[in-house]
Amino acid sequence: MTAEKKKLKVCLTPALLPLFDIEGSIVVVIDIFRATTSICYGIENGAEAIIPVSKVEECEAYREMGLGYLLAAERDGKVVEGFDFGNSPFSYTADKVNGKTIVLTTTNGTHALHLSTKAKRIVIGSFLNITSLCNWLKTQSEDILLVCAGWKNNFNLEDTLFAGAVADKLGTTTYTHDDATIAATDLYHLAQNDLDGYLKKTSHSERLKQLGIEKDIAFCLNVDTTKAIPVLDGGKLVKLRDVNRHQQ
Amino acid sequence: MTAEKKKLKVCLTPALLPLFDIEGSIVVVIDIFRATTSICYGIENGAEAIIPVSKVEECEAYREMGLGYLLAAERDGKVVEGFDFGNSPFSYTADKVNGKTIVLTTTNGTHALHLSTKAKRIVIGSFLNITSLCNWLKTQSEDILLVCAGWKNNFNLEDTLFAGAVADKLGTTTYTHDDATIAATDLYHLAQNDLDGYLKKTSHSERLKQLGIEKDIAFCLNVDTTKAIPVLDGGKLVKLRDVNRHQQ
Repeated sequence: MTAEKKKLKVCLTPALLPLFDIEGSIVVVIDIFRATTSICYGIENGAEAIIPVSKVEECEAYREMGLGYLLAAERDGKVVEGFDFGNSPFSYTADKVNGKTIVLTTTNGTHALHLSTKAKRIVIGSFLNITSLCNWLKTQSEDILLVCAGWKNNFNLEDTLFAGAVADKLGTTTYTHDDATIAATDLYHLAQNDLDGYLKKTSHSERLKQLGIEKDIAFCLNVDTTKAIPVLDGGKLVKLRDVNRHQQ
Repeated sequence: MTAEKKKLKVCLTPALLPLFDIEGSIVVVIDIFRATTSICYGIENGAEAIIPVSKVEECEAYREMGLGYLLAAERDGKVVEGFDFGNSPFSYTADKVNGKTIVLTTTNGTHALHLSTKAKRIVIGSFLNITSLCNWLKTQSEDILLVCAGWKNNFNLEDTLFAGAVADKLGTTTYTHDDATIAATDLYHLAQNDLDGYLKKTSHSERLKQLGIEKDIAFCLNVDTTKAIPVLDGGKLVKLRDVNRHQQ
């Protein structure tokens, strides 16, 4: 540990990514409702890999390759017609994904991921794996950039709250916080005792309710139910293998 | 007043402006430290007009026209060499600006203003004129977009807190709030009893302190010391004349 603090920054929406030093940072991609939650759950449940792709057509193209991959496509909160599933975490249970490779495209999460590919390392965060993720982050010497996927480049509260939760766990002893990190942390402190209640007042929550996925939402707010940290490796999200080695 | 609520949205940085319906909204430009505070103060103190320009060269060009305008240019928190003054509110007292036209370029405030020119109307907000501004906004039937100038397209807390203060005053009875508005309002509620103390923890505050402008900062957090609402009219910021006519 050097005397100089590491930088912890929050990118509130992917539209702001050009303002940050992606190359010099570990990027945590955050799309709480529901992409990164489902990715964490799927990797925990033994999925061999999850391949994030930007377009529905790219996902479709894997079908013709006959590799036996599961194809998952979500747009505007719904499963795209003709696909196995979208980004509901209940599609990523062990009986469905264990040993499988999944090709996934979502409205916001995979978009944020592709904009971050120049990072030193890209990992995936959700409330499910937050403590495991933060313990690993603390062992790393790089600056950290928390990238909120938002909703179509707009700011959203659920991703910001999660960023605040991470900042809260990492603390200020070894990290500097930019204004967005301070804001996210303070909002998280307001909301932490009733995340679900706090998020109920948001427009996104209303939209998700109309989609009939309240069960998904509740699931996405479970804390510390998984340990796996998905990491991008050669274009695929796989389980980070050096966690134990580096874990303090 | 129709049954349908008006939309109140917060654009957290100018980089996010393309996501919003500028054309359909009244835009409030916010650059608390210090451009919009100084503009409010200058217009209150009898400045005939303040002409916002994007570039230092445009500001310089007015010198050669020999119109007797005051030229104000700020970059990175400092007065640009060779100019009468920058954006310190203490340069906008009545003895300096009464009856004068000022040409102004700043790092963030005038940038946000120029990106918003397609709005139905552009007005200028600061803590100095907040109640007067909000009383007028309430009389308007259009949606409202609060545009935080930020710092070089980055999110900052002081502009966000002001947006939250406006949202707090406008309330939710006749306005819907997007996620950014909810966040800004909650942050304002946290900070409102000690704005200065709250902002001391920000990086921007540290930068401004290094510039030796703590007196300016304290001034910019004075609430309701002015009544004038600067409005953009034909490329110039002038005093909104129909305030009393429309005021409830």
